[in-house]
Amino acid sequence: MNGKFITFEGGEGAGKSTQIKLLSEYLNAKHKDVLTTKEPGGTPIGLQLRKLLVEGSADKFDAVSETLLFFADRRIHVQQKIIPALAEGKWVLSDRFADSTMVYQYYAENKGISKEDILWLYNFAVGKFWPDLTIVLDIDPKIGLARSFKKAEGMEQKEVRFESKALAWHERIREGYLAIAAAEPQRCVVIDADTGIEQLHKKIVAAVNERFEL
Amino acid sequence: MNGKFITFEGGEGAGKSTQIKLLSEYLNAKHKDVLTTKEPGGTPIGLQLRKLLVEGSADKFDAVSETLLFFADRRIHVQQKIIPALAEGKWVLSDRFADSTMVYQYYAENKGISKEDILWLYNFAVGKFWPDLTIVLDIDPKIGLARSFKKAEGMEQKEVRFESKALAWHERIREGYLAIAAAEPQRCVVIDADTGIEQLHKKIVAAVNERFEL
Repeated sequence: MNGKFITFEGGEGAGKSTQIKLLSEYLNAKHKDVLTTKEPGGTPIGLQLRKLLVEGSADKFDAVSETLLFFADRRIHVQQKIIPALAEGKWVLSDRFADSTMVYQYYAENKGISKEDILWLYNFAVGKFWPDLTIVLDIDPKIGLARSFKKAEGMEQKEVRFESKALAWHERIREGYLAIAAAEPQRCVVIDADTGIEQLHKKIVAAVNERFEL
Repeated sequence: MNGKFITFEGGEGAGKSTQIKLLSEYLNAKHKDVLTTKEPGGTPIGLQLRKLLVEGSADKFDAVSETLLFFADRRIHVQQKIIPALAEGKWVLSDRFADSTMVYQYYAENKGISKEDILWLYNFAVGKFWPDLTIVLDIDPKIGLARSFKKAEGMEQKEVRFESKALAWHERIREGYLAIAAAEPQRCVVIDADTGIEQLHKKIVAAVNERFEL
Protein backbone atom coordinates (compact mmCIF):
# COMPACT_ATOMS: atom_id res chain seq x y z
CA MET A 1 0.00 0.00 0.00
CA ASN A 2 1.11 3.53 -0.79
CA GLY A 3 0.29 5.22 2.51
CA LYS A 4 2.01 4.94 5.88
CA PHE A 5 0.40 3.77 9.08
CA ILE A 6 1.74 5.45 12.23
CA THR A 7 0.35 4.62 15.66
CA PHE A 8 0.73 6.69 18.82
CA GLU A 9 0.90 4.82 22.08
CA GLY A 10 1.45 5.69 25.73
CA GLY A 11 -0.29 5.94 29.09
CA GLU A 12 -3.02 8.42 29.99
CA GLY A 13 -2.11 12.07 29.49
CA ALA A 14 1.07 11.47 27.49
CA GLY A 15 -0.07 14.00 24.88
CA LYS A 16 -1.01 11.64 22.05
CA SER A 17 -4.00 13.55 20.66
CA THR A 18 -2.22 16.94 20.70
CA GLN A 19 0.87 15.49 19.02
CA ILE A 20 -1.18 13.71 16.36
CA LYS A 21 -2.80 17.04 15.48
CA LEU A 22 0.62 18.72 15.20
CA LEU A 23 2.15 15.91 13.15
CA SER A 24 -0.89 15.94 10.86
CA GLU A 25 -0.35 19.68 10.22
CA TYR A 26 3.35 19.08 9.59
CA LEU A 27 2.60 16.30 7.08
CA ASN A 28 -0.03 18.42 5.36
CA ALA A 29 2.60 21.12 4.90
CA LYS A 30 4.74 18.42 3.23
CA HIS A 31 1.80 17.78 0.84
CA LYS A 32 0.83 14.48 2.41
CA ASP A 33 -2.80 13.47 2.59
CA VAL A 34 -3.43 12.58 6.24
CA LEU A 35 -6.19 10.70 8.06
CA THR A 36 -6.21 10.98 11.86
CA THR A 37 -8.14 8.35 13.77
CA LYS A 38 -8.29 6.66 17.15
CA GLU A 39 -9.00 3.45 19.06
CA PRO A 40 -11.40 2.58 20.38
CA GLY A 41 -13.96 4.41 18.29
CA GLY A 42 -12.40 5.06 14.88
CA THR A 43 -15.67 4.17 13.10
CA PRO A 44 -19.37 4.88 13.81
CA ILE A 45 -19.83 1.35 15.18
CA GLY A 46 -16.56 1.69 17.08
CA LEU A 47 -17.83 4.86 18.77
CA GLN A 48 -20.63 2.82 20.31
CA LEU A 49 -18.06 0.29 21.53
CA ARG A 50 -15.90 3.15 22.85
CA LYS A 51 -18.76 4.34 25.06
CA LEU A 52 -19.03 0.84 26.54
CA LEU A 53 -15.26 0.60 27.04
CA VAL A 54 -14.16 3.95 28.43
CA GLU A 55 -17.15 5.13 30.46
CA GLY A 56 -18.48 3.71 33.72
CA SER A 57 -16.85 1.81 36.58
CA ALA A 58 -13.52 0.00 36.21
CA ASP A 59 -15.12 -3.31 37.30
CA LYS A 60 -18.14 -3.26 34.97
CA PHE A 61 -16.50 -6.11 33.06
CA ASP A 62 -13.16 -7.86 33.13
CA ALA A 63 -10.05 -7.81 30.93
CA VAL A 64 -11.13 -10.82 28.84
CA SER A 65 -14.38 -9.06 27.89
CA GLU A 66 -12.47 -5.85 27.19
CA THR A 67 -9.95 -7.63 25.01
CA LEU A 68 -12.69 -9.14 22.83
CA LEU A 69 -14.41 -5.75 22.48
CA PHE A 70 -11.18 -3.94 21.66
CA PHE A 71 -10.35 -6.46 18.94
CA ALA A 72 -13.87 -6.20 17.49
CA ASP A 73 -13.42 -2.43 17.35
CA ARG A 74 -9.98 -2.90 15.79
CA ARG A 75 -11.18 -5.35 13.15
CA ILE A 76 -13.87 -2.94 11.99
CA HIS A 77 -11.43 -0.01 12.17
CA VAL A 78 -8.75 -1.72 10.07
CA GLN A 79 -11.16 -3.13 7.50
CA GLN A 80 -13.47 -0.18 7.03
CA LYS A 81 -11.16 2.80 7.56
CA ILE A 82 -7.40 2.22 7.88
CA ILE A 83 -6.75 -0.12 4.95
CA PRO A 84 -8.96 1.82 2.50
CA ALA A 85 -7.14 5.07 3.47
CA LEU A 86 -3.70 3.48 3.05
CA ALA A 87 -4.77 2.13 -0.35
CA GLU A 88 -5.55 5.73 -1.36
CA GLY A 89 -2.01 6.74 -0.37
CA LYS A 90 -2.96 8.47 2.86
CA TRP A 91 -0.81 8.75 5.95
CA VAL A 92 -2.92 7.31 8.74
CA LEU A 93 -2.17 8.51 12.28
CA SER A 94 -3.97 6.51 14.98
CA ASP A 95 -4.32 7.47 18.63
CA ARG A 96 -3.73 3.96 20.06
CA PHE A 97 -3.71 0.59 18.29
CA ALA A 98 -2.95 -3.02 19.24
CA ASP A 99 -0.06 -2.27 21.61
CA SER A 100 -2.63 -0.67 23.90
CA THR A 101 -4.42 -4.00 24.25
CA MET A 102 -1.18 -5.86 24.93
CA VAL A 103 -0.23 -3.31 27.57
CA TYR A 104 -3.58 -2.61 29.24
CA GLN A 105 -5.09 -6.10 29.16
CA TYR A 106 -1.92 -8.17 29.51
CA TYR A 107 0.93 -6.22 31.15
CA ALA A 108 -1.25 -4.16 33.51
CA GLU A 109 -3.89 -6.77 34.38
CA ASN A 110 -1.71 -9.87 34.27
CA LYS A 111 -4.49 -12.33 35.09
CA GLY A 112 -6.25 -14.82 32.86
CA ILE A 113 -4.74 -13.49 29.64
CA SER A 114 -1.38 -14.42 28.18
CA LYS A 115 0.77 -12.62 25.64
CA GLU A 116 0.03 -15.53 23.27
CA ASP A 117 -3.73 -14.98 23.69
CA ILE A 118 -3.39 -11.37 22.57
CA LEU A 119 -1.21 -12.34 19.62
CA TRP A 120 -3.72 -15.06 18.63
CA LEU A 121 -6.52 -12.50 18.71
CA TYR A 122 -4.41 -10.02 16.72
CA ASN A 123 -3.91 -12.60 13.99
CA PHE A 124 -7.62 -13.53 14.02
CA ALA A 125 -8.85 -9.93 13.92
CA VAL A 126 -6.14 -8.07 11.99
CA GLY A 127 -3.94 -10.67 10.29
CA LYS A 128 -0.43 -9.91 9.03
CA PHE A 129 -0.97 -6.15 8.89
CA TRP A 130 1.16 -4.04 11.31
CA PRO A 131 1.92 -0.31 11.73
CA ASP A 132 4.87 1.07 9.75
CA LEU A 133 5.91 3.07 12.81
CA THR A 134 4.77 3.18 16.43
CA ILE A 135 5.60 6.24 18.50
CA VAL A 136 5.56 5.49 22.24
CA LEU A 137 5.17 8.67 24.29
CA ASP A 138 6.77 7.84 27.61
CA ILE A 139 5.74 9.68 30.75
CA ASP A 140 5.67 9.18 34.52
CA PRO A 141 2.05 8.12 35.22
CA LYS A 142 1.76 10.59 38.11
CA ILE A 143 2.29 13.45 35.63
CA GLY A 144 0.19 11.87 32.87
CA LEU A 145 -2.81 11.09 35.10
CA ALA A 146 -2.89 14.64 36.45
CA ARG A 147 -3.06 15.90 32.85
CA SER A 148 -5.71 13.34 31.92
CA PHE A 149 -8.09 14.10 34.81
CA LYS A 150 -7.72 17.81 34.03
CA LYS A 151 -8.80 17.10 30.42
CA ALA A 152 -11.79 15.02 31.62
CA GLU A 153 -13.11 17.98 33.66
CA GLY A 154 -14.22 19.59 30.41
CA MET A 155 -15.97 16.44 29.08
CA GLU A 156 -19.71 15.93 29.25
CA GLN A 157 -19.26 12.14 29.51
CA LYS A 158 -16.18 11.46 31.62
CA GLU A 159 -13.91 8.96 29.86
CA VAL A 160 -12.04 7.99 33.01
CA ARG A 161 -12.82 4.29 33.38
CA PHE A 162 -9.16 3.34 32.90
CA GLU A 163 -7.77 6.44 34.60
CA SER A 164 -9.62 5.42 37.78
CA LYS A 165 -7.38 2.37 38.28
CA ALA A 166 -4.57 2.37 40.87
CA LEU A 167 -1.21 4.03 40.28
CA ALA A 168 0.65 0.68 40.35
CA TRP A 169 -1.55 -0.39 37.44
CA HIS A 170 -0.47 2.68 35.47
CA GLU A 171 3.19 1.96 36.33
CA ARG A 172 2.76 -1.46 34.70
CA ILE A 173 1.30 0.27 31.61
CA ARG A 174 4.49 2.28 31.29
CA GLU A 175 6.71 -0.78 31.79
CA GLY A 176 4.67 -2.71 29.23
CA TYR A 177 5.18 -0.10 26.55
CA LEU A 178 8.91 0.02 27.21
CA ALA A 179 9.09 -3.79 27.00
CA ILE A 180 7.30 -3.86 23.64
CA ALA A 181 9.48 -1.06 22.23
CA ALA A 182 12.64 -2.86 23.40
CA ALA A 183 11.49 -6.09 21.73
CA GLU A 184 10.49 -4.40 18.45
CA PRO A 185 12.95 -1.57 17.78
CA GLN A 186 12.38 -1.80 14.03
CA ARG A 187 8.74 -0.74 14.51
CA CYS A 188 8.77 1.32 17.72
CA VAL A 189 10.45 4.50 18.88
CA VAL A 190 10.21 5.71 22.49
CA ILE A 191 10.10 9.48 23.06
CA ASP A 192 10.25 11.20 26.45
CA ALA A 193 6.94 13.07 26.71
CA ASP A 194 7.68 14.99 29.92
CA THR A 195 8.44 18.16 28.01
CA GLY A 196 6.68 21.10 26.35
CA ILE A 197 4.30 20.57 23.46
CA GLU A 198 6.50 22.20 20.79
CA GLN A 199 9.66 20.44 21.92
CA LEU A 200 7.90 17.06 21.89
CA HIS A 201 6.54 17.80 18.40
CA LYS A 202 10.07 18.46 17.15
CA LYS A 203 11.28 15.13 18.53
CA ILE A 204 8.38 13.34 16.83
CA VAL A 205 9.09 15.06 13.51
CA ALA A 206 12.73 14.00 13.81
CA ALA A 207 11.68 10.39 14.43
CA VAL A 208 9.31 10.40 11.45
CA ASN A 209 11.96 11.92 9.20
CA GLU A 210 14.47 9.34 10.29
CA ARG A 211 12.05 6.54 9.37
CA PHE A 212 10.53 7.84 6.12
CA GLU A 213 11.58 9.99 3.19
CA LEU A 214 9.47 13.15 3.26
CA MET B 1 -23.20 -26.08 40.78
CA ASN B 2 -26.73 -26.97 41.89
CA GLY B 3 -28.71 -25.51 39.02
CA LYS B 4 -29.06 -26.74 35.46
CA PHE B 5 -28.13 -24.81 32.35
CA ILE B 6 -30.35 -25.52 29.32
CA THR B 7 -29.80 -23.74 26.02
CA PHE B 8 -32.29 -23.46 23.17
CA GLU B 9 -30.88 -23.34 19.68
CA GLY B 10 -32.27 -23.26 16.15
CA GLY B 11 -32.74 -21.06 13.12
CA GLU B 12 -34.98 -18.00 12.94
CA GLY B 13 -38.62 -18.61 13.82
CA ALA B 14 -38.14 -22.08 15.29
CA GLY B 15 -40.18 -21.08 18.35
CA LYS B 16 -37.38 -20.79 20.93
CA SER B 17 -38.73 -17.85 22.95
CA THR B 18 -42.28 -19.27 23.14
CA GLN B 19 -41.00 -22.69 24.19
CA ILE B 20 -38.67 -21.22 26.82
CA LYS B 21 -41.64 -19.43 28.37
CA LEU B 22 -43.67 -22.66 28.44
CA LEU B 23 -40.82 -24.75 29.85
CA SER B 24 -40.21 -22.10 32.50
CA GLU B 25 -43.86 -22.33 33.59
CA TYR B 26 -43.62 -26.13 33.65
CA LEU B 27 -40.48 -26.04 35.80
CA ASN B 28 -42.03 -23.48 38.14
CA ALA B 29 -44.96 -25.86 38.63
CA LYS B 30 -42.36 -28.47 39.61
CA HIS B 31 -41.07 -25.99 42.24
CA LYS B 32 -37.89 -25.14 40.35
CA ASP B 33 -36.50 -21.64 40.52
CA VAL B 34 -36.00 -20.57 36.86
CA LEU B 35 -34.04 -17.79 35.17
CA THR B 36 -34.82 -17.20 31.50
CA THR B 37 -32.25 -15.28 29.50
CA LYS B 38 -30.98 -14.83 25.97
CA GLU B 39 -27.99 -14.16 23.72
CA PRO B 40 -27.00 -11.71 22.62
CA GLY B 41 -28.25 -9.30 25.27
CA GLY B 42 -28.65 -11.26 28.51
CA THR B 43 -27.15 -8.38 30.54
CA PRO B 44 -27.50 -4.57 30.42
CA ILE B 45 -24.15 -4.27 28.63
CA GLY B 46 -25.12 -7.18 26.40
CA LEU B 47 -28.30 -5.39 25.36
CA GLN B 48 -26.16 -2.60 23.91
CA LEU B 49 -24.12 -5.21 22.01
CA ARG B 50 -27.36 -6.87 20.86
CA LYS B 51 -28.49 -3.63 19.23
CA LEU B 52 -25.21 -3.50 17.30
CA LEU B 53 -25.48 -7.15 16.29
CA VAL B 54 -29.07 -7.70 15.27
CA GLU B 55 -30.14 -4.36 13.82
CA GLY B 56 -29.01 -2.71 10.60
CA SER B 57 -27.69 -4.09 7.32
CA ALA B 58 -26.26 -7.60 6.98
CA ASP B 59 -22.95 -6.22 5.66
CA LYS B 60 -22.34 -3.56 8.35
CA PHE B 61 -19.47 -5.73 9.60
CA ASP B 62 -18.15 -9.19 8.85
CA ALA B 63 -18.29 -12.56 10.61
CA VAL B 64 -14.93 -12.09 12.38
CA SER B 65 -16.16 -8.85 13.98
CA GLU B 66 -19.45 -10.50 14.89
CA THR B 67 -17.73 -13.48 16.44
CA LEU B 68 -15.64 -11.23 18.71
CA LEU B 69 -18.73 -9.25 19.75
CA PHE B 70 -20.79 -12.38 20.40
CA PHE B 71 -18.04 -13.83 22.60
CA ALA B 72 -17.70 -10.55 24.53
CA ASP B 73 -21.46 -10.64 25.15
CA ARG B 74 -21.21 -14.30 26.16
CA ARG B 75 -18.30 -13.74 28.55
CA ILE B 76 -20.21 -11.01 30.39
CA HIS B 77 -23.42 -13.10 30.32
CA VAL B 78 -21.77 -16.21 31.78
CA GLN B 79 -19.77 -14.35 34.42
CA GLN B 80 -22.34 -11.85 35.60
CA LYS B 81 -25.61 -13.75 35.20
CA ILE B 82 -25.53 -17.47 34.32
CA ILE B 83 -22.92 -18.76 36.77
CA PRO B 84 -24.27 -16.74 39.75
CA ALA B 85 -27.79 -18.07 39.02
CA LEU B 86 -26.60 -21.69 38.76
CA ALA B 87 -24.70 -21.26 42.03
CA GLU B 88 -28.03 -20.28 43.65
CA GLY B 89 -29.57 -23.52 42.35
CA LYS B 90 -31.57 -21.94 39.56
CA TRP B 91 -32.50 -23.58 36.28
CA VAL B 92 -31.18 -21.24 33.60
CA LEU B 93 -32.91 -21.35 30.20
CA SER B 94 -31.06 -19.41 27.52
CA ASP B 95 -32.45 -18.44 24.13
CA ARG B 96 -29.24 -19.17 22.15
CA PHE B 97 -25.68 -19.76 23.39
CA ALA B 98 -22.34 -20.72 21.83
CA ASP B 99 -23.72 -23.16 19.25
CA SER B 100 -25.29 -20.15 17.57
CA THR B 101 -21.84 -18.66 16.99
CA MET B 102 -20.48 -21.95 15.63
CA VAL B 103 -23.45 -22.24 13.29
CA TYR B 104 -23.97 -18.63 12.18
CA GLN B 105 -20.33 -17.50 11.96
CA TYR B 106 -18.70 -20.80 10.91
CA TYR B 107 -21.18 -23.16 9.21
CA ALA B 108 -23.25 -20.48 7.48
CA GLU B 109 -20.48 -18.01 6.59
CA ASN B 110 -17.67 -20.47 5.96
CA LYS B 111 -15.03 -17.87 5.16
CA GLY B 112 -12.08 -16.69 7.23
CA ILE B 113 -13.15 -18.51 10.39
CA SER B 114 -12.44 -22.13 11.25
CA LYS B 115 -14.13 -24.42 13.74
CA GLU B 116 -10.90 -24.32 15.74
CA ASP B 117 -11.04 -20.52 15.88
CA ILE B 118 -14.50 -20.64 17.45
CA LEU B 119 -13.41 -23.32 19.93
CA TRP B 120 -10.31 -21.26 20.85
CA LEU B 121 -12.52 -18.23 21.49
CA TYR B 122 -14.95 -20.34 23.53
CA ASN B 123 -12.12 -21.50 25.75
CA PHE B 124 -10.78 -17.94 26.07
CA ALA B 125 -14.17 -16.37 26.85
CA VAL B 126 -16.06 -19.12 28.66
CA GLY B 127 -13.54 -21.80 29.69
CA LYS B 128 -14.55 -25.36 30.57
CA PHE B 129 -18.17 -24.48 31.31
CA TRP B 130 -20.80 -26.01 28.96
CA PRO B 131 -24.61 -26.35 28.97
CA ASP B 132 -26.08 -29.39 30.72
CA LEU B 133 -28.56 -29.78 27.88
CA THR B 134 -28.99 -28.12 24.48
CA ILE B 135 -32.37 -28.34 22.78
CA VAL B 136 -32.10 -27.84 19.02
CA LEU B 137 -35.46 -26.85 17.51
CA ASP B 138 -35.24 -28.03 13.92
CA ILE B 139 -37.34 -26.40 11.23
CA ASP B 140 -37.32 -25.83 7.48
CA PRO B 141 -35.94 -22.27 7.11
CA LYS B 142 -38.70 -21.33 4.68
CA ILE B 143 -41.27 -21.92 7.43
CA GLY B 144 -39.12 -20.38 10.18
CA LEU B 145 -38.29 -17.19 8.27
CA ALA B 146 -41.95 -16.59 7.45
CA ARG B 147 -42.73 -16.80 11.19
CA SER B 148 -39.76 -14.57 12.06
CA PHE B 149 -40.58 -11.76 9.63
CA LYS B 150 -44.20 -11.85 10.87
CA LYS B 151 -42.92 -11.37 14.45
CA ALA B 152 -40.66 -8.47 13.36
CA GLU B 153 -43.68 -6.60 11.93
CA GLY B 154 -44.71 -5.77 15.47
CA MET B 155 -41.24 -4.58 16.58
CA GLU B 156 -40.32 -0.92 16.81
CA GLN B 157 -36.67 -1.69 15.98
CA LYS B 158 -36.63 -4.49 13.41
CA GLU B 159 -34.23 -7.24 14.51
CA VAL B 160 -33.90 -8.72 11.04
CA ARG B 161 -30.21 -8.28 10.27
CA PHE B 162 -29.63 -12.05 10.14
CA GLU B 163 -33.07 -12.86 8.74
CA SER B 164 -32.25 -10.69 5.70
CA LYS B 165 -29.55 -13.11 4.48
CA ALA B 166 -30.23 -15.52 1.59
CA LEU B 167 -32.18 -18.75 1.99
CA ALA B 168 -29.11 -20.89 1.20
CA TRP B 169 -27.40 -19.25 4.19
CA HIS B 170 -30.32 -20.29 6.43
CA GLU B 171 -30.16 -23.83 5.02
CA ARG B 172 -26.52 -23.99 6.17
CA ILE B 173 -27.66 -22.83 9.65
CA ARG B 174 -29.97 -25.81 9.84
CA GLU B 175 -27.30 -28.22 8.62
CA GLY B 176 -24.80 -26.77 11.11
CA TYR B 177 -27.10 -27.40 14.07
CA LEU B 178 -27.76 -30.96 12.93
CA ALA B 179 -24.00 -31.55 12.57
CA ILE B 180 -23.28 -30.28 16.10
CA ALA B 181 -26.10 -32.35 17.59
CA ALA B 182 -24.87 -35.47 15.79
CA ALA B 183 -21.33 -34.89 17.11
CA GLU B 184 -22.46 -34.21 20.70
CA PRO B 185 -25.45 -36.46 21.42
CA GLN B 186 -24.69 -36.44 25.17
CA ARG B 187 -25.38 -32.69 25.31
CA CYS B 188 -27.81 -32.06 22.45
CA VAL B 189 -31.28 -33.23 21.54
CA VAL B 190 -32.91 -32.35 18.20
CA ILE B 191 -36.67 -31.78 18.20
CA ASP B 192 -38.82 -31.30 15.10
CA ALA B 193 -40.31 -27.81 15.53
CA ASP B 194 -42.69 -27.89 12.56
CA THR B 195 -45.66 -28.59 14.79
CA GLY B 196 -48.16 -26.84 17.06
CA ILE B 197 -46.98 -24.94 20.13
CA GLU B 198 -48.50 -27.33 22.70
CA GLN B 199 -47.28 -30.44 20.92
CA LEU B 200 -43.75 -29.04 20.71
CA HIS B 201 -43.88 -28.12 24.39
CA LYS B 202 -44.77 -31.73 25.28
CA LYS B 203 -41.82 -33.04 23.27
CA ILE B 204 -39.49 -30.61 25.07
CA VAL B 205 -40.84 -31.62 28.48
CA ALA B 206 -40.27 -35.25 27.58
CA ALA B 207 -36.66 -34.50 26.57
CA VAL B 208 -36.01 -32.58 29.82
CA ASN B 209 -37.54 -35.37 31.90
CA GLU B 210 -35.43 -37.92 30.12
CA ARG B 211 -32.26 -35.96 30.94
CA PHE B 212 -32.94 -34.81 34.51
CA GLU B 213 -34.83 -36.08 37.55
CA LEU B 214 -37.71 -33.68 38.21
